[in-house]
Amino acid sequence: MTTQREYALANKITPQMTVAAEYEQIPARKILQGLKSGRIALVKNKNRAIRPMAVGENCLTKVNANIGTSKLRSTIQAELAKLKACAQYGADAVMDLSTGGDLDGTRRTLLGKTKLCFGTVPIYQLMCESRSGLDGDALLEIIRKHCAQGVDFITVHCGVTREVAALLKRYPRVTGVVSRGGSYIHKWLNKTSQENPLYERFDELCEIAYEYDVTLSLGDGLRPGCLADAHDKAQIKELEILGKLTRRAWRKNVQVMIEGPGHVPYDQIARSMRLEKKLCRGAPFYVLGPLTTDIAAGYDHIAGAIGGTLAAVNGADFLCYVTPAEHLGLPDLQDVRDGILASRIAAHSADLVKYPERSAARDLAMARARKALDWNAQFKLALDSAKARSVRLAKGQNVKECTMCGDLCSMREM
Amino acid sequence: MTTQREYALANKITPQMTVAAEYEQIPARKILQGLKSGRIALVKNKNRAIRPMAVGENCLTKVNANIGTSKLRSTIQAELAKLKACAQYGADAVMDLSTGGDLDGTRRTLLGKTKLCFGTVPIYQLMCESRSGLDGDALLEIIRKHCAQGVDFITVHCGVTREVAALLKRYPRVTGVVSRGGSYIHKWLNKTSQENPLYERFDELCEIAYEYDVTLSLGDGLRPGCLADAHDKAQIKELEILGKLTRRAWRKNVQVMIEGPGHVPYDQIARSMRLEKKLCRGAPFYVLGPLTTDIAAGYDHIAGAIGGTLAAVNGADFLCYVTPAEHLGLPDLQDVRDGILASRIAAHSADLVKYPERSAARDLAMARARKALDWNAQFKLALDSAKARSVRLAKGQNVKECTMCGDLCSMREM
Repeated sequence: MTTQREYALANKITPQMTVAAEYEQIPARKILQGLKSGRIALVKNKNRAIRPMAVGENCLTKVNANIGTSKLRSTIQAELAKLKACAQYGADAVMDLSTGGDLDGTRRTLLGKTKLCFGTVPIYQLMCESRSGLDGDALLEIIRKHCAQGVDFITVHCGVTREVAALLKRYPRVTGVVSRGGSYIHKWLNKTSQENPLYERFDELCEIAYEYDVTLSLGDGLRPGCLADAHDKAQIKELEILGKLTRRAWRKNVQVMIEGPGHVPYDQIARSMRLEKKLCRGAPFYVLGPLTTDIAAGYDHIAGAIGGTLAAVNGADFLCYVTPAEHLGLPDLQDVRDGILASRIAAHSADLVKYPERSAARDLAMARARKALDWNAQFKLALDSAKARSVRLAKGQNVKECTMCGDLCSMREM
Repeated sequence: MTTQREYALANKITPQMTVAAEYEQIPARKILQGLKSGRIALVKNKNRAIRPMAVGENCLTKVNANIGTSKLRSTIQAELAKLKACAQYGADAVMDLSTGGDLDGTRRTLLGKTKLCFGTVPIYQLMCESRSGLDGDALLEIIRKHCAQGVDFITVHCGVTREVAALLKRYPRVTGVVSRGGSYIHKWLNKTSQENPLYERFDELCEIAYEYDVTLSLGDGLRPGCLADAHDKAQIKELEILGKLTRRAWRKNVQVMIEGPGHVPYDQIARSMRLEKKLCRGAPFYVLGPLTTDIAAGYDHIAGAIGGTLAAVNGADFLCYVTPAEHLGLPDLQDVRDGILASRIAAHSADLVKYPERSAARDLAMARARKALDWNAQFKLALDSAKARSVRLAKGQNVKECTMCGDLCSMREM
């Protein structure tokens, strides 16, 4: 037996399930049951020595941070600093989306420096290196290389098919295909008469993923790039295809997550979550945002936190952060910190609703520390202790209360 | 006739109603109907020459920014800079919560420098200046002074009564009374056998408000200061009292808003909004946050945007901003900017749901500008143009795309 799903189906609780269950504060049996039904993914490459990240039903909402070089910016030093920030500020996973410099070397270096769950989008490497377009053999070779290097999950845009492309042609969008991988595939489909190899050769893809117990994160190449494009026919069709592929992967004992939007009006977010759970039989849902407005440039981490909370309350299991640099440029270190914190606030706000018995104690302790004007306890309990401390310091800390109210402090008055 | 409500009840459309209706892009008759039912407040001191702020049913969600000196910090120069930022970054109203320096002079100066709707919490002045505690005569005198100076709305904690104090004693809270005005009154009630003069002398208060058409913002002295205290008996009782006072004020042709929480778990926010609308007969609801977690110190503007969006979708009409300095110190200029933007994103995200016909065009234009890689149009359409421009600049703008994707840009690929 190779994959955690396989062990679960054989009713064997593995050390990985036990470790994850301890972190989640739930019985290991619940992890096992989730793996069996596919409603939980235990994300970890079988060759990597980390605590697996449990994503899905009964699991705390997880946060991913995207880092990586671009063709125009960034160095390995900058990315290493961002990687350190990911652990420091509470990301559960990190994706290396590098498209600049030595891609294999960057990935190897980053993988060697973190115990966080680690993901990639292998098609980016093809986009950077291939001279012959979307070559299926080359792409599967890249995927195998990422898996062999120890990557825990990979985004694969298997649902961008000729059928979906035809729908896109028939029902045009305002912003078209905004997923980088998705738009590369879509362009290829339009230029050739071929099918997306990630769809056509899905069984081969599953075989590679199985060999390393790498979780397939089925990418939403058709995620809406603006509110007006949300829930169009192409997006729904892709999700239907991903649902079918999910079941095929499960039959091959491969673990699956589904990726989701994107830009979605607030009142469509709950529906979007329910639709994924229905079409993909409860597979864990990994969402980007969702952003509840298109006009928050410079503050998209906030729009993402607004949408992410509602999404997580309604079934999203894993939030991909959005940073203040979204739509404007490559995130820097401060953007990474701000993006993680915004997503953590969203995830925790949702977990207080989904799992109050596991989440509320810290908030209660904070409330008591506030009442006691115990600043050190407050800093310790804050999601970002260093930030809380530095803000108080900057505002003037030479008083028992804070500089907002001084001796009019209501905590003191009582 | 003196107040806009009075004109509405006489079926007379005033220039104020017309101006507000134009801004809202709704017929003036809708404003008139809302004023009649009390579901809209047209907030403007009758002696002040500004565009009135319409708050309530059918009106766009409004945003308030709190500024003002504290006993420990800030100067009039700093507050003037914050006041300027309020207009620049899109606040609809500003409250002067000063508790330090020359309070009357500060208020006069700020009022003279803004066309924004302007509010105060008169009891703060009593707290700073009174040596005899909660003297009803002195408080009413201060209230009259604020109204005569031109203030458009005042927070008055009329619902912190002996009955409420008894409930607080019987059902203790983790953080007690966290409203500054509320805790001052509560302390007084515990120390004396007297009743809250703002409750006992509510008719006199209404007479002053009527004279200047100042909107009474009935304060929630019992707002929860942590998630654990949300919706306790004291809070609900105060809201019931405010509901009764609302009807008394309406009978005297005085306009009313209700203030709301505070710290509220995400799954209780919709209920909180419905409860206010029911108990207060649809009076406009003015909420602080709500914050969906207690542990976001340094980032409470984000927790407030998460709660504020859900609140506004479910009936909140007016969002009081929360800044990154909340719980830590007096906000500075950058905090004011960040707080306003977070609230604007929340308000706009909600308005896209409540009033798409009035709100969606700007988002659609932004989507088109993105597709066209038209950066100047994007900056113009962004909620904070200067920020969007400066982020792009900092990331490197010497390419047609952005430094995130460079020539892998999906907008270009299409």
